[in-house]
Amino acid sequence: MPRYRLLIEYDGAPFCGWQRQAEDATVQGAVEAAVERFSGEAARLTCAGRTDAGVHATGQVAHLDLAKAWRTDTVRDAINAHLRPLPVAVIAADLVGPEFDARHSAIRRHYRYRILNRRSPAALVRPYVWHVPWALDAEAMHAAAQRLLGRHDFSAFRAAECQAASPVRTLERLDVAREAAGPLEEIVVTTHARSFLHHQVRSMVGTLMLAGSHRLTPDDVAAILAARDRSRCGPMAPACGLTLTGVDYADAGK
Amino acid sequence: MPRYRLLIEYDGAPFCGWQRQAEDATVQGAVEAAVERFSGEAARLTCAGRTDAGVHATGQVAHLDLAKAWRTDTVRDAINAHLRPLPVAVIAADLVGPEFDARHSAIRRHYRYRILNRRSPAALVRPYVWHVPWALDAEAMHAAAQRLLGRHDFSAFRAAECQAASPVRTLERLDVAREAAGPLEEIVVTTHARSFLHHQVRSMVGTLMLAGSHRLTPDDVAAILAARDRSRCGPMAPACGLTLTGVDYADAGK
Repeated sequence: MPRYRLLIEYDGAPFCGWQRQAEDATVQGAVEAAVERFSGEAARLTCAGRTDAGVHATGQVAHLDLAKAWRTDTVRDAINAHLRPLPVAVIAADLVGPEFDARHSAIRRHYRYRILNRRSPAALVRPYVWHVPWALDAEAMHAAAQRLLGRHDFSAFRAAECQAASPVRTLERLDVAREAAGPLEEIVVTTHARSFLHHQVRSMVGTLMLAGSHRLTPDDVAAILAARDRSRCGPMAPACGLTLTGVDYADAGK
Repeated sequence: MPRYRLLIEYDGAPFCGWQRQAEDATVQGAVEAAVERFSGEAARLTCAGRTDAGVHATGQVAHLDLAKAWRTDTVRDAINAHLRPLPVAVIAADLVGPEFDARHSAIRRHYRYRILNRRSPAALVRPYVWHVPWALDAEAMHAAAQRLLGRHDFSAFRAAECQAASPVRTLERLDVAREAAGPLEEIVVTTHARSFLHHQVRSMVGTLMLAGSHRLTPDDVAAILAARDRSRCGPMAPACGLTLTGVDYADAGK
């Protein structure tokens, strides 16, 4: 039974997250429905990162098995044709071996979080940023972020409903940088790890926002992590600022 | 009577362009209504670039006169408060002298045009790009673009309804470059001139698309310009890919 690896982009706004639900529109549900309409098969998708409601992706990866062998370009184009007019697109489809599992074979997930940091509200980029209207100190945010790198119990930055067996994760990168593009004033948080806990990125970003507001020092952030103290975290940053930008596999995805 | 200079950002999608109309929603109409709601004055805005329906801006500049002298931060914040929930924001408000005219004092308009050049349709960036699904040769586009630089009669790239007194313009920059950001494949056209004819940027981009498709050579593009032959132009590129990114003034906008 041929297995296909899909690279998927979506605007998370109209969806209740990735994971299929009985009632609500989800990305998984939309792609599976498109697969069924073109192939006649009720295939199930497995993805690398089950994004929450409102979270975007430019580099989600999923796999599915189909009884029939199709040309990969046909798989990509036919799913896209049946996804219209939803803001979901299959960027690439590849044939992979049965040992490939989009979730379990992944060795690294990449996320980007965009903060619009200016007095005026967002207009053009509104669906894709968290608007913080007071001045944030991006260098202080970056300094605090470095205290979270490495292998730790991330219970302080974990959703109550997180289903992971262990709260221990290894954070490999958490960079904060101000990017001025024309009149826009954006702060971009770039992070990757083998995997993240539920709400971990948005919880870390909310806490870094407090560091950028000089309400927490880097030592405070380190202490919150060490104490596994969710009550001292910042607010969870809103979903719309977050994008899953890519997933790495040991053998480049094959 | 104090004169205020506004720097304005907007998503053009829900508007029938900048210019106020009796029936349809426009950016000018929205901002003027917000000004009137906060100040009680029926002020009229003059802008640097009267963008068409669907065209975006990150750096539109306009001026208006108000009888009362307000703090500039109040002007900015009060207009923004009354613009909600429309995707229009005043990024900055400054007090300027009576000699400043957002339209006539402008010495340079900057535009950016985004083409998503990949087989798969746009999902996350759909409202901001022109999707061209076949492979474009960005270097060929750039080479053709250089043939349009300088002072010319741009009748070949002018809308039939253009009201400018003269079709002569001096094109100072027209760069085409491929920008790969993650799995996205974008071609970005960056241009500036003292002023442009109606539909000039979108007409040039449509013609450059033909050059990128190897359906026109750089010599063909130069010949179209020289012949002032609108019938040999490419299709006009769609509005949603275009953004007015900035306006220059001799004295930095004051």
